[in-house]
Amino acid sequence: MNLHINGLYAKLKEEHLDALLVSSSANISYLTDFPGRDAYLLISKKENFYLTDSRYIAEAKKGLRKAFTLKKINGSVFKLVAGLCQGRGLRRVGFEERNLPFAEYNKIKAEAKKKVELIPTHSLVEEFRQRKSPQELAKMKKAIQITVAALKFIQGCLLPGKKEIEIAAELERFIRYQGAQASAFDIIVASGPNSCFPHHLTSERKLKAQEPVLIDIGVDYRGYKSDLTRVFFLGKITSLFRRIYDIVLLAQHRAIKKIRPAVQIRQIDAAARQYINQKGYGGFFIHNLGHGIGLQVHEDPYISGKQDGILKPGMVFTVEPAIYLPGKFGIRIEDMVLVTHKGCEVLSGVLD
Amino acid sequence: MNLHINGLYAKLKEEHLDALLVSSSANISYLTDFPGRDAYLLISKKENFYLTDSRYIAEAKKGLRKAFTLKKINGSVFKLVAGLCQGRGLRRVGFEERNLPFAEYNKIKAEAKKKVELIPTHSLVEEFRQRKSPQELAKMKKAIQITVAALKFIQGCLLPGKKEIEIAAELERFIRYQGAQASAFDIIVASGPNSCFPHHLTSERKLKAQEPVLIDIGVDYRGYKSDLTRVFFLGKITSLFRRIYDIVLLAQHRAIKKIRPAVQIRQIDAAARQYINQKGYGGFFIHNLGHGIGLQVHEDPYISGKQDGILKPGMVFTVEPAIYLPGKFGIRIEDMVLVTHKGCEVLSGVLD
Repeated sequence: MNLHINGLYAKLKEEHLDALLVSSSANISYLTDFPGRDAYLLISKKENFYLTDSRYIAEAKKGLRKAFTLKKINGSVFKLVAGLCQGRGLRRVGFEERNLPFAEYNKIKAEAKKKVELIPTHSLVEEFRQRKSPQELAKMKKAIQITVAALKFIQGCLLPGKKEIEIAAELERFIRYQGAQASAFDIIVASGPNSCFPHHLTSERKLKAQEPVLIDIGVDYRGYKSDLTRVFFLGKITSLFRRIYDIVLLAQHRAIKKIRPAVQIRQIDAAARQYINQKGYGGFFIHNLGHGIGLQVHEDPYISGKQDGILKPGMVFTVEPAIYLPGKFGIRIEDMVLVTHKGCEVLSGVLD
Repeated sequence: MNLHINGLYAKLKEEHLDALLVSSSANISYLTDFPGRDAYLLISKKENFYLTDSRYIAEAKKGLRKAFTLKKINGSVFKLVAGLCQGRGLRRVGFEERNLPFAEYNKIKAEAKKKVELIPTHSLVEEFRQRKSPQELAKMKKAIQITVAALKFIQGCLLPGKKEIEIAAELERFIRYQGAQASAFDIIVASGPNSCFPHHLTSERKLKAQEPVLIDIGVDYRGYKSDLTRVFFLGKITSLFRRIYDIVLLAQHRAIKKIRPAVQIRQIDAAARQYINQKGYGGFFIHNLGHGIGLQVHEDPYISGKQDGILKPGMVFTVEPAIYLPGKFGIRIEDMVLVTHKGCEVLSGVLD
């Protein structure tokens, strides 16, 4: 039995829930150690059900643990869920309010009639996912290792005349030879002024001499994701580029130095933001400092000025301050850090 | 002004809606001709709003048409939506019930209080998307052309000892050099018995002589997707493989021959399924015959035995009969067809 499931049982008891319907694919992977594609999970102390359709049944029979009863969806999954709840006497059934579309909620409600009470829940499983286990960290470190290798490899390809999309093509090939299952998101290769757009769509634009190239890349290693950004410069670095780069890098140092258990999350964001403000570029750092990462590229905890939470050991998140100068260039430096018992570990390289 | 928007206005009038909140990213792309990442669209005859956050504002300012008023999300998007509805006197506001999580529905409802009535809608925009315009078809044909070229190219790489994931790596690289923005989904390379799993996760398994390799690949070309499957054989084709392959291919022919406007969709599925049944393999064809494709890999119309609809000119969908022999191999042949005024066009090659 997966340890996470026992933690979840305790949580359900606390919330007076007989069961939880899990519809988030990442949460399903977390609880089952099995890919949760086109699946639902119904967790209860009595019995756990993994619901999926005919396309995945053979794989699930082979790979799913015995703690889960496999149920094939024939026709309506909503009828199946309602039937299982009624059959097992599960009356108060939680669902994941952020991961269940309005239409699906309504269908389950209609099928279950008055015999089942559907209770919205928020982040029950996500709460556990914030603190990574040693097994999870091992996978994340491998994902990061592949990403770091890819960023080293690609430097030989960054030549004037190469298209952004061709750089992405070489990276996509490289990471799979290194053991990645896929890229974690569409790799961003943003040359020259394109680097001003934080989520630039990698294009046919050609790299030019005397321009920066920003590369934001992550991979999927056995379900776990990485996410790193580096900015390179083709030619002799200009003084403006150097100045901005150093501000962003020092802002990142300021933030990382603050990371240790019990510190307020918003203070980490503030540390980087205040430094960039001081230097006069506050208006050009237009997003949060970072985001949690694990089975999803973006997950709790979000490292923003609006966060109420505190840091806890085992949390892994990105630290990615940036300055975007419209029409000129953008610089973002993104690393991944782990909160340790004493402070933090930069998983994606050594700073200083 | 995008023609689709005018069609949608008429639809809103028909449904007595003052506005529609569009949360499906594909629907946003369809209506705006602009990528709808982390965005919402509020459509009304009075004014159309495109809502997005600071990460995308610069790109939206540059690329979004004038028919859309750009609104930056500061803080809660739900408050912003509710405020816009109230400010413009939009009282009956539709939302996309399949594309709005329960939590978001509740937040908008709470913000709007009693001044705005939220009405669930189903497939208002998807309905238009089923019939492709010439502009859309041009992009889809380009996506298919790249995919066909990739399937031709990869045959030179299919050698014993190569890993499945390495084949995927070469394809991921190739398609981007040919002009694709990305793969449309994780490319499936399934060797030997792995081909029995319809959605096999491409693995480290090595290709072997005297085994089949199934490749299911699609690309994204300017937002539009392709999706094709071919099965290759390394070595001298066995008689079992030949027999099963021919049954699947003929089942596909049977289905394609039936495709023309006004035919019931379920009859297309039945044509292939009945043939496979006759040959004694009905129990091994475990999924629908196909699915609509366009801005999404899987979209309406789904080509299944449960469909009530009829075919209409301009629809594009896959035809992908299959036989999966557990522990042995699976064969799926997947092409893309366009319903024309007289019959159909196989977009991904010539049959017979």
